[in-house]
Amino acid sequence: MFSGTNLPRVGGYNLNVVLSSIQAADGISRVEIAKQTGLTAQTVSVIVRRLIEQGIVKEDGSSPSSGGKPRTTLRINPRAAYAIGIHFDPIEVSVVVVDMMGQELAQSRHGISPRLEPEALIAEAAEVAHKRLAELDIPDDRVLGVGAACPGPIDQSQGLVISPPRRDCWTEVPIKRLLEHHTGFDVIVDNDANAAAIGERWSGHGRTVSDFAFLYMGTGIGGAMFLSNHIYRGVSLNAGEFGHIVVEPNGTPCYCGNRGCLEAMCSPAAIVRNVRAELALGRASSLVHLYDEDPELVDHTAICLAAVDNDQVARRVIDRVAEYLADCAVIIANALDVELLVIGGKGVIHVADIYAEKVTEFLQSRPLARKTHTLRVAISDMANNGAALGAASLVLHAAYAPNTADLVGV
Amino acid sequence: MFSGTNLPRVGGYNLNVVLSSIQAADGISRVEIAKQTGLTAQTVSVIVRRLIEQGIVKEDGSSPSSGGKPRTTLRINPRAAYAIGIHFDPIEVSVVVVDMMGQELAQSRHGISPRLEPEALIAEAAEVAHKRLAELDIPDDRVLGVGAACPGPIDQSQGLVISPPRRDCWTEVPIKRLLEHHTGFDVIVDNDANAAAIGERWSGHGRTVSDFAFLYMGTGIGGAMFLSNHIYRGVSLNAGEFGHIVVEPNGTPCYCGNRGCLEAMCSPAAIVRNVRAELALGRASSLVHLYDEDPELVDHTAICLAAVDNDQVARRVIDRVAEYLADCAVIIANALDVELLVIGGKGVIHVADIYAEKVTEFLQSRPLARKTHTLRVAISDMANNGAALGAASLVLHAAYAPNTADLVGV
Repeated sequence: MFSGTNLPRVGGYNLNVVLSSIQAADGISRVEIAKQTGLTAQTVSVIVRRLIEQGIVKEDGSSPSSGGKPRTTLRINPRAAYAIGIHFDPIEVSVVVVDMMGQELAQSRHGISPRLEPEALIAEAAEVAHKRLAELDIPDDRVLGVGAACPGPIDQSQGLVISPPRRDCWTEVPIKRLLEHHTGFDVIVDNDANAAAIGERWSGHGRTVSDFAFLYMGTGIGGAMFLSNHIYRGVSLNAGEFGHIVVEPNGTPCYCGNRGCLEAMCSPAAIVRNVRAELALGRASSLVHLYDEDPELVDHTAICLAAVDNDQVARRVIDRVAEYLADCAVIIANALDVELLVIGGKGVIHVADIYAEKVTEFLQSRPLARKTHTLRVAISDMANNGAALGAASLVLHAAYAPNTADLVGV
Repeated sequence: MFSGTNLPRVGGYNLNVVLSSIQAADGISRVEIAKQTGLTAQTVSVIVRRLIEQGIVKEDGSSPSSGGKPRTTLRINPRAAYAIGIHFDPIEVSVVVVDMMGQELAQSRHGISPRLEPEALIAEAAEVAHKRLAELDIPDDRVLGVGAACPGPIDQSQGLVISPPRRDCWTEVPIKRLLEHHTGFDVIVDNDANAAAIGERWSGHGRTVSDFAFLYMGTGIGGAMFLSNHIYRGVSLNAGEFGHIVVEPNGTPCYCGNRGCLEAMCSPAAIVRNVRAELALGRASSLVHLYDEDPELVDHTAICLAAVDNDQVARRVIDRVAEYLADCAVIIANALDVELLVIGGKGVIHVADIYAEKVTEFLQSRPLARKTHTLRVAISDMANNGAALGAASLVLHAAYAPNTADLVGV
């Protein structure tokens, strides 16, 4: 049920409201913050003074104001704090270090041997993180914490990875506890799509958008959503599984139990399988020479590059994928009525424009409410590294984003 | 962006938090309210005193407590306030009067001549509402207001009905202004599915559930959702259009622009069309004699009754509809991860059990997160009158439900 609120909670909430105004703006004055947030000038002044004392906000020049003294410009001090992001993808691990604005200062990436035990992998990632911090001369006490992104489903309260697809030995791994032990930092765990969406919110297309959905094309296909300025995780933290929306009722069976869901029709593995099947039938394609050398060489990257080059086979398969994604986008529009759909993840590298064009076309002609407003489409600028950057943003977001749930203590 | 909060907002919010605790319980003590809400005993006492003075809450006996004086039981005074609900369906208008607990005290229902102008219809509904109030001896000053439910899309801020399906003359009708003029009360307008969901929240299956979806089977098919204890309407107030989710990509074209969406495959009109088509082919069915007399006699009600009686033709069509509804329920589970799906609206009368059984079966075997938790299914107990009762609840909900958006002034 509902919980009441009280003064200390209000103070903490308003501090984060002011911080969030400064973070979203490219330079802002105290007067503008008061106008934007509805807080009194005095409340804003007190909060800003505290943020400056803590080194989180800095004064940076001034701008003229209409008939009065110039207004001091406030900005986040990006060096006030740092966060580490680690993305455990089924086939590789990425580690990033970001500053307070979510900007990447360093990154590492390495493939995973399928036989490596979870704890060994976690220990290795922790070691890499500490090496990058040392190279950047960042002392441990300036690090807010570690964010870890994993394929879902996960149990966030316990920091457990439950049973991710395609990783049999990762059943009920206590990733939060292990990573805290090996890094010495506080750890927040979330699924890769939620992490990528929070990254988008912190420093990408979602920065000033109250309601957006994220379609995450990684090794698998996932999703996430910000509704009314808050990430919505669902009652078991599994909301946004857009990858398991059925787009072809008689399509390929998926491990989830459905047939023809997005994951089964549009994941990189499905794309590779479909193109190889066409090549096996002897269709004319620029990929034939690769295929004849070794079918394994016809991988997702080769196919995406060929599609952009208008190879008939690759392009037909990618175009079909674009239509399925667009079908799913229409469902998202009808069900959620958000303002923006961000598409990201390394699965869209090279072919993002093809996907965005088809999705935009369907969104302009299909959803019921399209005459009221058309859902905008954006491609994440963090495609190659979105989940790791997002994982780092988990830490920044948890520390600094205003959350009405904190206000009412739920 | 975010807005700050302040003391008066906190006071109003906490009052509604206490009220909501009392409303959800079947008798509750001050001590239990404090425990449930996290508010101090003193804050609860002050708020309860004010609610008793206003006549909204009453003391009703006492219950023994473990080693202390007996605790006084608090209840809502159902006669503290009343609300009127009006549902403008494409084929009929329903008017209800409810008490503060959302219980129906009176109802009227009449068919609509397709040629009646909107204002004449609204004036007629207002007259009916005043007659019912007079019969119940309820003075105007005890009426909180009128809730109006219409098929979407609507513009809630302006109280405009934009262009509902199957009602050509209802384009941009200023329903809020007209209804305020003709009734003399404040009016809140919402689409029928949102209204039905709010009714479910106020006095139905959603009373103590923080996250639920509502699948509304009226003349058309719509939907709504409560997420984190708040109704989620989307950026253009059109969230929850589950009726336009495609369940059969090559299916019947829909007026929305898709093919094979739930509305086109499962609305009463589609069910009637499909059964008549089978009867026209001469299939054996208990409906043949009706059909031979006049095909128009084979209506939705006749078909649903025949399906329950295991008539082969009717049952096959209804079973197929049940599967499509279940497909849509799986999409809702994957996308929203709510705790409960309520199915309601007059379209499920007679066949609710057939639909609920199939939906439950799919929800136990298909959604990705089914091992974490299974989405529960409930049939609305307000099927026959859900949107009108829900419309009345709009008024109660707006006046009394805690809303964190009010807290932060957005």
